[in-house]
Parts: sequence; C-alpha cells; structure tokens
Amino acid sequence: MFNEKQLDRMLQQARAEAEQLGVAVNIAIVDAGAHLLAFYRMQGALLGSVDIAQRKAKTAVLFPLPTEALGELVRQEQLQSLELSNSGLILFAGGEPIRLQGQLMGGVGVSGASAEQDKQIARAAIAALSGQD
Amino acid sequence: MFNEKQLDRMLQQARAEAEQLGVAVNIAIVDAGAHLLAFYRMQGALLGSVDIAQRKAKTAVLFPLPTEALGELVRQEQLQSLELSNSGLILFAGGEPIRLQGQLMGGVGVSGASAEQDKQIARAAIAALSGQD
Amino acid sequence: MFNEKQLDRMLQQARAEAEQLGVAVNIAIVDAGAHLLAFYRMQGALLGSVDIAQRKAKTAVLFPLPTEALGELVRQEQLQSLELSNSGLILFAGGEPIRLQGQLMGGVGVSGASAEQDKQIARAAIAALSGQD
Amino acid sequence: MFNEKQLDRMLQQARAEAEQLGVAVNIAIVDAGAHLLAFYRMQGALLGSVDIAQRKAKTAVLFPLPTEALGELVRQEQLQSLELSNSGLILFAGGEPIRLQGQLMGGVGVSGASAEQDKQIARAAIAALSGQD
Repeated sequence: MFNEKQLDRMLQQARAEAEQLGVAVNIAIVDAGAHLLAFYRMQGALLGSVDIAQRKAKTAVLFPLPTEALGELVRQEQLQSLELSNSGLILFAGGEPIRLQGQLMGGVGVSGASAEQDKQIARAAIAALSGQD
Repeated sequence: MFNEKQLDRMLQQARAEAEQLGVAVNIAIVDAGAHLLAFYRMQGALLGSVDIAQRKAKTAVLFPLPTEALGELVRQEQLQSLELSNSGLILFAGGEPIRLQGQLMGGVGVSGASAEQDKQIARAAIAALSGQD
Repeated sequence: MFNEKQLDRMLQQARAEAEQLGVAVNIAIVDAGAHLLAFYRMQGALLGSVDIAQRKAKTAVLFPLPTEALGELVRQEQLQSLELSNSGLILFAGGEPIRLQGQLMGGVGVSGASAEQDKQIARAAIAALSGQD
Repeated sequence: MFNEKQLDRMLQQARAEAEQLGVAVNIAIVDAGAHLLAFYRMQGALLGSVDIAQRKAKTAVLFPLPTEALGELVRQEQLQSLELSNSGLILFAGGEPIRLQGQLMGGVGVSGASAEQDKQIARAAIAALSGQD
C-alpha cells in the first residue's frame, strides 16, 4: 500500500503535468485490490470523465497492463466482450498499473484530455514514485 | 437551471415537431448534473426508447457534444468501451447539449423515430429557448 | 394506456395542487408495466426526490396499493426486506395506483414535500381523470 | 463549483483534523450534482468506508442536511426505505452539505472513525472555506 507521501506526490505530479499540457483532467489512484485511494477533478475537467478515470485505474489493476495494451490484446485475441466484465472496463490509453520493485501496488487512471495526453499524465504520476520511498 | 416556462416550452416544441413529422417519441430533459428534469412518452412511442431517450440526454451533458458527434469521435480515436462508462452511454443521434449564453445548462434526448428525426426533434426543443428567458 | 390528454391533465393537476400548497415536487407517472410515461421536476424540487418519485410510482403498480398502505402491510405481516425487491421500493406515502373502470392503468408518484402533501398531490393527479376520456 | 484552491484547502483541513484526532478516514467531496470532485483515503483507513464516505457526501447534496439530521427525519416521519433510493443513502453522521453565501455548492462525506469524529472532520473541511474565495 502506498503511504500518504507517495499518494500526494503522484497526485501533485499528475496535476503539474496536466497544467503544463494545458489540460484539465480527472485523476484516480486505486490500490492492488482495485479500490479507490485518491481522486481529483481538476477545475473544468469533463464530467463524463469522472467515471472513466476510475475505470481506467481499475482496469489497469485487474489486468495489469497499460489500458491501451489490453485493448490491443482484446482485438488481437478476439476477446470481444471482455470489457463487459468487472462492471465495465476501459480499453483505451490513460490507465497504468503501478509497480514498485516488481510488485503490483495499484493503478492510476487519467481522463479528460486526449488518450495520449491522459497516458502521459498517468505516467508522470508513476514517475513521481521512483527513487523515493 | 431552467425555469418551468423554459421546460414547458421545450417539451411542447419537441412534441409539436414530432407530430408534424408524424412520429411518436420519448423526450427527456436533464440538468447540468445529468439529473432528470422532465420526461414525456408520446402515445405509441417505443417502450425500449424510454431508456434510450434518457441516456441520450445524459450523454449529451457528460460529454457536451451532439451524441452522434461523440460517436464519431469514439470511432476516429478508437475509444471503444467509452460507451460502457457512466452506466451506459448512447453514441448515435438524438442527444443534444443545451447551452444558454455559452453555458452548459443541460441536455435533451429524443428516441423513438429514426436517429435523424430524433435529432431534429431535440434541436426543435432547444430552439424553443432562443430569444426567451 | 393513457392518451396524451389524460397524461397532460394529470401532470397539470399535480402541478396546480403543488402550487396551491406552496411546495415544489417531482411528479412521475408510469404505465401498467411500471415503465415511465411522464416526469416533471418543479423548479426548486429536491434533487434526491427525483428518484423517489419514480420509485413511488413503480411501487404503486407492482403492488397496487397506496405506497403507505403497502408499508403498513409490510409492518403488520413482518415482510421485512420486501422493499429490497424490484431494485428498491418506497413504503411511505406519495405513490398511488391509477385505476380506470376497475382496471389498473398505471401509477403516480410524488416526492419533495411532506409525505402527506405528496399523497394529496398524487391523488389530485388521479382525480383529474374522472368523468373524462 | 469550487476552484482547486478551495478543494485543496478542504482536503488538507480534513486530513489535519483527522491526524489531530489520531484517526485515519476516507474523505469525499462532491459537486452540487452529487458527482465526485475529490477523494482521499488516509493510510490505514477502513476499506469498507471508501464507499460510505462517497455515499455520505452524495446524501448530503441530494437531501441538503447533515446526514444524521436526515436520519432523524426518516425516523420521525417514518420514511423507512428512503435510504434505498438513489442507489443507497447513508443516514448517520459524517456527511455535510456545503453552502457558500447560502447556495448549495456540494457535499463532504467522511468515514472511518466514529460517526461523531467523522462529522467533526467533515465540518473542519467546510470551515476551511470561510472568509476565503
């Protein structure tokens, strides 16, 4: 489980990255059980993305891949309908599993900008963990 | 929030437009938080469309675009599974965001006729607001 | 099934009754299959009552009694948990079955004022049907 | 809608109050449409309270009273089953509506400590808004 310093750092870094990109997003962080740890809606972020950010974080823990990689796998392996499981998954970019020393610790989901920007912001959040306790 | 005169006018205009087209539809109007403000099922309107009209109105507030424009975006950007978010969105024509002086006030969703007719009826409802408080 | 004149008359009468009482309520009318026919949120009506009005109307069709009479029955017969069925029923006043010539035609649910006022408004809606087609 | 400074201040103040009480809680803040704005799980907070904090915040917007006051109303007026509406409400202390200059802006819900402590933390969050934009 993340400690509060780690959680704060991830949220701060995600918000800073979004501001630098000039976008307003929703940011969700879940634990290794896919339960919500933290959520933040930046001012002006899309209302419909409140739910998507949380689903992306959940998806990235349940199937510990970047969400767009899971989407690609679903297309390649013709796993249509997999996204209906678990009360609804999201299969495009913006959800990332979080690993520390090889262990799955949780997931982060970002939604509100383009899928590529969402992904960049999610990765910035995770990068905030490295080299630190 | 719309006042009752505005709400009545939108409903009346939608019904009048549908009658002129010779179709029976379900009409839903939601507020800026996507909560139901008014609903009307015209006599003979499809039962399955009761739910669709409400989802269209909700979709048009959560992602403030005409619903078919959101559908086009989902195809272009390969955002498959987005429609599973928010308890289910609708990605074809008939849902329209309602803006007054540039501010998102709510959404209207129409279902029961062809998607193009649904859209025409939704737009008639919104047109009933212009030039009037 | 009600025709549109009947539906309009019920909505108008409910709104008129609420205005006379000086309250703002949510009004829902459902058909004999408990599917939504019409809904209206008066300006300033409680947001949490949007859902309750619809549940009251549904409850009054599924168990065709005034909702508070069903509540009394549940207490007398110790039918605890019945309210969990059908995705959630409401067991206090404000939902009324609608009968025409002895036949169950639908239900009306009102919420936002006191339960007694809600009930009075629901009954006013139904009274609007009598002596008319 | 709160700006980010207001949101940050509420979260910080709630966390500071909880630390002073020596408890770990979940904190949820929603907007006037009952949609999530921010969420924070303090280290060691109860997993089952993740959901309760969010429901408390939602309840306090849908029925704009402190949640325990709504619970008292439900008992006094025998509104049993009201808690089943709106996908599930919470009727004990820890949810508070947030008003600025008399206008309902949203709600805060806290869960994880005793109900009285949860309430004290929620009120501390709201107090962080006063005298500031």
